[in-house]
Amino acid sequence: MHDIIQDLHHRYTVKKYDPSKRISSEKIEIIKEAIRLSPSSINSQPWKFILIETEEAKQRFHDTFAIKFQFNQHHAIESSHIILFAYDPHYTKEKYAHRVDVEVESGHLPAEMHDNMLNGGYAFADLNTDEAGFNGNWTKAQLYLALGNALHVLARLEIGSTPMEGVDMDLIGQEFSEELDGHVCEVALAMGYFLEGEDYNHGLPKARLPLDEVFKVI
Amino acid sequence: MHDIIQDLHHRYTVKKYDPSKRISSEKIEIIKEAIRLSPSSINSQPWKFILIETEEAKQRFHDTFAIKFQFNQHHAIESSHIILFAYDPHYTKEKYAHRVDVEVESGHLPAEMHDNMLNGGYAFADLNTDEAGFNGNWTKAQLYLALGNALHVLARLEIGSTPMEGVDMDLIGQEFSEELDGHVCEVALAMGYFLEGEDYNHGLPKARLPLDEVFKVI
Repeated sequence: MHDIIQDLHHRYTVKKYDPSKRISSEKIEIIKEAIRLSPSSINSQPWKFILIETEEAKQRFHDTFAIKFQFNQHHAIESSHIILFAYDPHYTKEKYAHRVDVEVESGHLPAEMHDNMLNGGYAFADLNTDEAGFNGNWTKAQLYLALGNALHVLARLEIGSTPMEGVDMDLIGQEFSEELDGHVCEVALAMGYFLEGEDYNHGLPKARLPLDEVFKVI
Repeated sequence: MHDIIQDLHHRYTVKKYDPSKRISSEKIEIIKEAIRLSPSSINSQPWKFILIETEEAKQRFHDTFAIKFQFNQHHAIESSHIILFAYDPHYTKEKYAHRVDVEVESGHLPAEMHDNMLNGGYAFADLNTDEAGFNGNWTKAQLYLALGNALHVLARLEIGSTPMEGVDMDLIGQEFSEELDGHVCEVALAMGYFLEGEDYNHGLPKARLPLDEVFKVI
């Protein structure tokens, strides 16, 4: 079996973490850098990632489960790290201009192409923006692209993870408003190592639709 | 540099394919299987993938650029393969029940948990469904998770790719209505190998926001 398929077979959603096991700082740096390198439409990068690693920050995240989704609350304390994945619901041309500036500074884009890229690229954001300036459905899709990349990266690093849509976006928005800086968090990713003998989801066969139901080859 | 970071540095958006180079059938099988194994919220798998590999199918895709996004049209003919990524805009509980059936059949879920999973899981889809039964923003996000996984897989396989939101969803919907079976395609992924000396986007430095702008560590 190819390494890629093996990695994807081994990844699964951890249901119980071993609180004594921490992800090494070397691996955390790889995870951050890999997420930073995630592709996105027009290189929009319409996102913000809050990495929770201290006990204090974990407690703050824990408190956001006060009302809803309490079945996920224990991950806040037991997992090694959590990333809040957040998208920008009002991604403006000015914000995109900053990304295009970085393209020029990095040597990726010739300076004389700056405005072409800005106008031609932002047209795609425009197509997905309503009259109130909301384009959160589009930016959220880009965020999930980064999430898909992150889950593959964690599989390669043999780190367990739990993607959670079961988080209280309102309480997170309040508690982490400063860090989120206008971004919206509807999904969080707990990471760490499963607790031996206590994680009912560990080691089970993968359950996916058969290939001929999801792929049509023409 | 870690392999993961190296792979992500090497991946980029191909702007010109070498039409003489084809992805091997072994690698195509890995790509299909890896996409099939993509995670999604509640294991919803609300997607359909159309893999275009014959000249005839490429011509049909080519024709969908008749009105819009003609700058992407050449990829339809020059790339080795294209995948149409499509999401289900009306993902019902009945459709989810079929996924839960597969969970039981695969040995992943105990049969007596079937209804718990169905009701508890579908609650997340419900939260994202409007009165008309539309939940396409949520299913599209899941699809982009699969796209993020796919792009990482292609990087590992050293296959070039071009994610294209610049596709005509209406003409694709008409031309491939039978294959799409009610799913909506707003993004396609061309794959193959770049044309030496003709791809202006090849080998350029990566342009991403600096780590401290996208990550906040607490």
